[in-house]
Amino acid sequence: MWNKNIQTFIGLEASFDEAKCVIFGAPMDSTTSYRPGTRFASSAMRQESFGIETYSPYQDKDLEDIKVFDGGDLELPFGNPRKSLDMIQETIKTILEANKLPCMIGGEHLVTLGAIEAVVEKYPDLRIIHFDAHTDLRDEYLGEKLSHASVIRRVHDIVGNGKIHQFGIRSGERDEFYWAKEHTNLNKFNFKGLQEAIEECQNYPVYFTIDLDVLDPSVFPGTGTPEAGGVTFIELLEAIIAVSKLNVVAMDINELSPVYDQSGASTALACKVLRELLLAMNKGEE
Amino acid sequence: MWNKNIQTFIGLEASFDEAKCVIFGAPMDSTTSYRPGTRFASSAMRQESFGIETYSPYQDKDLEDIKVFDGGDLELPFGNPRKSLDMIQETIKTILEANKLPCMIGGEHLVTLGAIEAVVEKYPDLRIIHFDAHTDLRDEYLGEKLSHASVIRRVHDIVGNGKIHQFGIRSGERDEFYWAKEHTNLNKFNFKGLQEAIEECQNYPVYFTIDLDVLDPSVFPGTGTPEAGGVTFIELLEAIIAVSKLNVVAMDINELSPVYDQSGASTALACKVLRELLLAMNKGEE
Amino acid sequence: MWNKNIQTFIGLEASFDEAKCVIFGAPMDSTTSYRPGTRFASSAMRQESFGIETYSPYQDKDLEDIKVFDGGDLELPFGNPRKSLDMIQETIKTILEANKLPCMIGGEHLVTLGAIEAVVEKYPDLRIIHFDAHTDLRDEYLGEKLSHASVIRRVHDIVGNGKIHQFGIRSGERDEFYWAKEHTNLNKFNFKGLQEAIEECQNYPVYFTIDLDVLDPSVFPGTGTPEAGGVTFIELLEAIIAVSKLNVVAMDINELSPVYDQSGASTALACKVLRELLLAMNKGEE
Amino acid sequence: MWNKNIQTFIGLEASFDEAKCVIFGAPMDSTTSYRPGTRFASSAMRQESFGIETYSPYQDKDLEDIKVFDGGDLELPFGNPRKSLDMIQETIKTILEANKLPCMIGGEHLVTLGAIEAVVEKYPDLRIIHFDAHTDLRDEYLGEKLSHASVIRRVHDIVGNGKIHQFGIRSGERDEFYWAKEHTNLNKFNFKGLQEAIEECQNYPVYFTIDLDVLDPSVFPGTGTPEAGGVTFIELLEAIIAVSKLNVVAMDINELSPVYDQSGASTALACKVLRELLLAMNKGEE
Amino acid sequence: MWNKNIQTFIGLEASFDEAKCVIFGAPMDSTTSYRPGTRFASSAMRQESFGIETYSPYQDKDLEDIKVFDGGDLELPFGNPRKSLDMIQETIKTILEANKLPCMIGGEHLVTLGAIEAVVEKYPDLRIIHFDAHTDLRDEYLGEKLSHASVIRRVHDIVGNGKIHQFGIRSGERDEFYWAKEHTNLNKFNFKGLQEAIEECQNYPVYFTIDLDVLDPSVFPGTGTPEAGGVTFIELLEAIIAVSKLNVVAMDINELSPVYDQSGASTALACKVLRELLLAMNKGEE
Amino acid sequence: MWNKNIQTFIGLEASFDEAKCVIFGAPMDSTTSYRPGTRFASSAMRQESFGIETYSPYQDKDLEDIKVFDGGDLELPFGNPRKSLDMIQETIKTILEANKLPCMIGGEHLVTLGAIEAVVEKYPDLRIIHFDAHTDLRDEYLGEKLSHASVIRRVHDIVGNGKIHQFGIRSGERDEFYWAKEHTNLNKFNFKGLQEAIEECQNYPVYFTIDLDVLDPSVFPGTGTPEAGGVTFIELLEAIIAVSKLNVVAMDINELSPVYDQSGASTALACKVLRELLLAMNKGEE
Repeated sequence: MWNKNIQTFIGLEASFDEAKCVIFGAPMDSTTSYRPGTRFASSAMRQESFGIETYSPYQDKDLEDIKVFDGGDLELPFGNPRKSLDMIQETIKTILEANKLPCMIGGEHLVTLGAIEAVVEKYPDLRIIHFDAHTDLRDEYLGEKLSHASVIRRVHDIVGNGKIHQFGIRSGERDEFYWAKEHTNLNKFNFKGLQEAIEECQNYPVYFTIDLDVLDPSVFPGTGTPEAGGVTFIELLEAIIAVSKLNVVAMDINELSPVYDQSGASTALACKVLRELLLAMNKGEE
Repeated sequence: MWNKNIQTFIGLEASFDEAKCVIFGAPMDSTTSYRPGTRFASSAMRQESFGIETYSPYQDKDLEDIKVFDGGDLELPFGNPRKSLDMIQETIKTILEANKLPCMIGGEHLVTLGAIEAVVEKYPDLRIIHFDAHTDLRDEYLGEKLSHASVIRRVHDIVGNGKIHQFGIRSGERDEFYWAKEHTNLNKFNFKGLQEAIEECQNYPVYFTIDLDVLDPSVFPGTGTPEAGGVTFIELLEAIIAVSKLNVVAMDINELSPVYDQSGASTALACKVLRELLLAMNKGEE
Repeated sequence: MWNKNIQTFIGLEASFDEAKCVIFGAPMDSTTSYRPGTRFASSAMRQESFGIETYSPYQDKDLEDIKVFDGGDLELPFGNPRKSLDMIQETIKTILEANKLPCMIGGEHLVTLGAIEAVVEKYPDLRIIHFDAHTDLRDEYLGEKLSHASVIRRVHDIVGNGKIHQFGIRSGERDEFYWAKEHTNLNKFNFKGLQEAIEECQNYPVYFTIDLDVLDPSVFPGTGTPEAGGVTFIELLEAIIAVSKLNVVAMDINELSPVYDQSGASTALACKVLRELLLAMNKGEE
Repeated sequence: MWNKNIQTFIGLEASFDEAKCVIFGAPMDSTTSYRPGTRFASSAMRQESFGIETYSPYQDKDLEDIKVFDGGDLELPFGNPRKSLDMIQETIKTILEANKLPCMIGGEHLVTLGAIEAVVEKYPDLRIIHFDAHTDLRDEYLGEKLSHASVIRRVHDIVGNGKIHQFGIRSGERDEFYWAKEHTNLNKFNFKGLQEAIEECQNYPVYFTIDLDVLDPSVFPGTGTPEAGGVTFIELLEAIIAVSKLNVVAMDINELSPVYDQSGASTALACKVLRELLLAMNKGEE
Repeated sequence: MWNKNIQTFIGLEASFDEAKCVIFGAPMDSTTSYRPGTRFASSAMRQESFGIETYSPYQDKDLEDIKVFDGGDLELPFGNPRKSLDMIQETIKTILEANKLPCMIGGEHLVTLGAIEAVVEKYPDLRIIHFDAHTDLRDEYLGEKLSHASVIRRVHDIVGNGKIHQFGIRSGERDEFYWAKEHTNLNKFNFKGLQEAIEECQNYPVYFTIDLDVLDPSVFPGTGTPEAGGVTFIELLEAIIAVSKLNVVAMDINELSPVYDQSGASTALACKVLRELLLAMNKGEE
Repeated sequence: MWNKNIQTFIGLEASFDEAKCVIFGAPMDSTTSYRPGTRFASSAMRQESFGIETYSPYQDKDLEDIKVFDGGDLELPFGNPRKSLDMIQETIKTILEANKLPCMIGGEHLVTLGAIEAVVEKYPDLRIIHFDAHTDLRDEYLGEKLSHASVIRRVHDIVGNGKIHQFGIRSGERDEFYWAKEHTNLNKFNFKGLQEAIEECQNYPVYFTIDLDVLDPSVFPGTGTPEAGGVTFIELLEAIIAVSKLNVVAMDINELSPVYDQSGASTALACKVLRELLLAMNKGEE
């Protein structure tokens, strides 16, 4: 008669088999250099999601109409980034093999590397759409190649020149900004240039990674390194809807650190971004 | 020689008899479904109001020039919403009978129902201007007819179709949005359409209810269910001044939950909204 | 292959059928007169319980050896205490009928009334052991008979004189303390007198209710009305073990309000109390 | 019909004329060297006092039986300690002239100096009972003679050797501890020696000053410089009752800084100390 | 081999002698009338600055290319504003005598008075550019001439009519706004009028004072009196760059109160403002 | 004339060469499994130490009389525990080679392993005195050998059976407690048995490691996994003084996580423990 307590994002009900999209948490913040805490993002989002609706008045779509499976959180070994990335890679691979769309909730931004390692195996011609406040292009950080500050540089090691499109960037070392001129398509401060990037990616599989600190700290203070001068929620929402027209084969949102915003507004916003992202990616054939 | 410690909003000095407007607190949050705390709004606002000025550079008016009585807070029975609403109804009635303008400080949004029950007795042809992030149009919530999520639906039970004008709405169930198409004048996201609504209400008595979560969580995180994508303080201020041209016969502001914004900025903003509201409603003949 | 995300207290694994004890949350705080927030207790405890161990070095017992089912939280209608109590009553009844030991996690202390209403049906000769900082003996509070401040008075209405044993009490109205002299066995400040009470209850079924604010606010600040001068964790632990020798037929712990202790120490302590309580009540025959 | 909103400590009802005791706030923290915030103590205590009872089960007395007037807070000029002390002095003088017992709520500890300047005029043979974690005996602090760290040294300037009895002291410069050997009766860490001090003060008028940081930070974290190793609430309570046998002619409690304890437990405890202090000082002839 | 622990803003490396600009903290908040805490601004900024970069993508300049000396914090006597101002005056004088650009980090806004007293000695024809939410033009506050609410009035006492240009002002007494019409160039709400002011100041030495509460509380909640309706970070940044074209001979930023924004976003933003200010003022000849 | 801003613990003044003791921070929390944040311990302690005195009334000793060098914090690579431990090992080695007493401030408890690896090279017959709430004896944690939950097990790998003396332990897996019976000298809950341990270690070099969570969460809530039922500050102080009679050749305190105690009391207490530790270890010949 009685069942165990299920906790999923906004009560997502689908099983793995029936789902077209699979979300899961990657609660890792080992390489965070300033203020840790993103490991609590996915569980906080599940908890807080009881306060939000399944319906989007922006898109006039409802989560109740689509099939998403919430697979819970990976149990990652603290202090071993490489092994954690391997586990993420394995998970993404399994989801892709089942022909479902993976959507990972970080965790620190380094989790994206594990995901892309899996995706690029299946889709060698992958393009990257990257929303962030930070360049994340250091070759190493305090001597480490695997770092949240290097994640997009590591992604570049895999996909090569001209395939990474960065937006909202407003912080980094001078060398990173200069290096980007040769190797990535870096757009400062906001989403200007997004339309061109979308056109360039039109015929390619796309990995879509959203570091939520692309948002202004006024709407998203709950993150490790808040950077003034970011985009608004509406701007992000419109950019997400624009990107959703592409062939997105995997995606993630990351860098929510719930403890730094005790109002809960940052977590609530992350939930809303995830809802809109899931709804936008669903192309309506259900 | 010595007097007891009086605590009123920004030191409002008028007695009940000399006042044209009466403010009071309705510290009720019994039906709040997510995060309670609005019961502390009115006392927090009185305390915090020592930090703000009586003068508005926006309207070039000063609270010192107008007569407002602060009647303190009602002592409402916790856990009995109907009895609480009766007490609110009684209070509003008393103020209306004395030909004064009531301005209630919530509490959760359900308090508005008690107020409107009283107002509609005196003004049967009442129109409602409603600023909010949420539809508040559920027929019931967890089986309860009296709920903060149903308050405008209950108001509709009283006033009927076409008399409720909603603005800033960006969250609710799909059914609520669809129901609204037939029964209320629902405007999504912002104040577009306000001018038309004002024209429609030109010749009617108006109840004006402001759920402060219509504001963006960036400027107003101190509320139970922060919804990204709201209006700015300046947009709200301009909308208030626009509405003040109408024959507003009663009004309320609600849903400040001070504990969720430890910076105090939300409470300070609520004070400022109340100041501007009181100043705007005062038509200068004093 | 993939399962949904189960969230239980410290990973309790048993199904309802195999369990000897059933825990569930009753997230109700409608009648709280001062600072609400206990509705979040049970979910916060499940979340925080990942940080504690299943083994008790105090009792040399391990939760892994006993069968407890975690039934999740009831969905109670906010603002309708009577209906909420009915749902609690129904739940307890179901558990008792299955011959299992119910352990409820409040919520405010009023939840105890619903539980005792069910228990007394099966065990008419019930005794009550009550740990609390507050008398909870008001006949009514702000006109309401159903209030967290009246819960033990309502219990007395049911069980009558001399059957309620109160410990740790250090706050209440004068009339409550004087009334208690005639009607309950009230022990002030600490657990002096517990041994006598245990002897008196030796041959009776016992309901055991722990308002966690019996603890000193130094160890348990996360509660609505912290009262200085309480007991230590070790004193509470020893008292729990003493009471566990009795025929406890149902029990609850209540009044954790996680938001008021941002260190998490109060929630962690509540988890530990629950662990020790479950272990103590298990009489070893497994 | 309607009255303005009165805010007094636990609803103390007496007028100045009928009162035997007068409490008032001295919200000054200008010289605080580390973390300011005591200016909010008295208003926070009035607000929080709604959560506590008028009856003391410790003393079996009730505030409802005694006559205390709450005169609100002085409006002190920020940044001018000497003028602030003059205003305090004037206030105490007025209360003493009306033959009432003054009880001041700080503010930082320096407020005590203004009070004692007034008291010593009426009672030249004054003794001081001083509970504190800190010596407060510096001759000057950063070049200033008027400082919270010098307040008892300044009091010594007035009353001279051997008249100050200090308890609970556990922090200060070496020179202060050594200087105390010659000039005050300093008792380290706790209340050992209190009985002797009480005997010595038997036939003298006494000023009683309680720096609440004498309490252990576990029970009273809400203060500017928490010092581990303090006394418990029960120890303080017993010491207060012991001192109340003397001829206390004026008293104060100080150094609550509410913002540093967001659980509210420190403010609640300060309220309880004030309640017990007022009850203990009332010698029952009412 | 081992050196002591140096703590400077973003690791600024220059010695006093080699520096062209000198920053230092003035941790004073004695006259703050509402919520103190600005005394912790400079040390919090040094600590938090480890989280931000030396490079500005806005200006394409890097702190590593310019010579700034961080002189640490002044040790100001708490509770003696005049003596504190004298110490600030002395410090500024020393820096000006060494032909370096002083940049002071408040502290409350009154610190600006000490600085201007020194600057005007060297530059009698000084103009003031003042960004703030508040007029700061009271003649006295609670009887005190030296107050954070009077600082610009005191500056006017020194420099006289027409030399002070105020921007972003949205709070003050009516009398202050009216007084400003005759005596200062007050621009309400935002930076409209800045271009004209810059033209007027073209040929004069300029003191540039930024009260950070000119920013909207959404981006800068960490201040004593948050005032809704402020400017964005980008608007402030552009205004700073505009002002930097002038002959700025001394400057300050003030009124960060870190404790009121536990997300750290306000402190991070203050760091970024300081970085951009230092970069803007550096006219590139290095 | 001007010097850079030096920040040392309570203004410790000695240079490396003249010091007898060297303190430094090891800000590492990569393997923390529950709530990270200890990386901020050492810098928070330096900042907070301005609020405490150099003199100990407990020991009648003063930090001004002894020579301690504060070497600042190591810059450890986030996410690479082994490399971090190597850097710690190197640092300790350098200090030991200079014949000074190293005192490390963690960081998570794993830092102790790096230190002991260095110490045991010089002192192969090392004994360990370990104060902690947790056993820290897991062979691995989530597959990792290097974990804060395994640190004492790894130390046992190095020093072998019977050389580790554990006190205050009240949390761990059953297997850890049972394993300890064969391999370490584990004392539950408090310091009972300390005298015997001290006698056993009389003639050996001793490493002294204090996990501050041995303290009760009431006095030390600022830590990742608060465990109710701990020791008091005075009990810890007496135990430290007892251990100081031994030949302590290196020591550490760890696991302060400042962000979880916003009152600052935990950080203040950690400062006081460090002061008392430094004073106790100084055997007076200076």
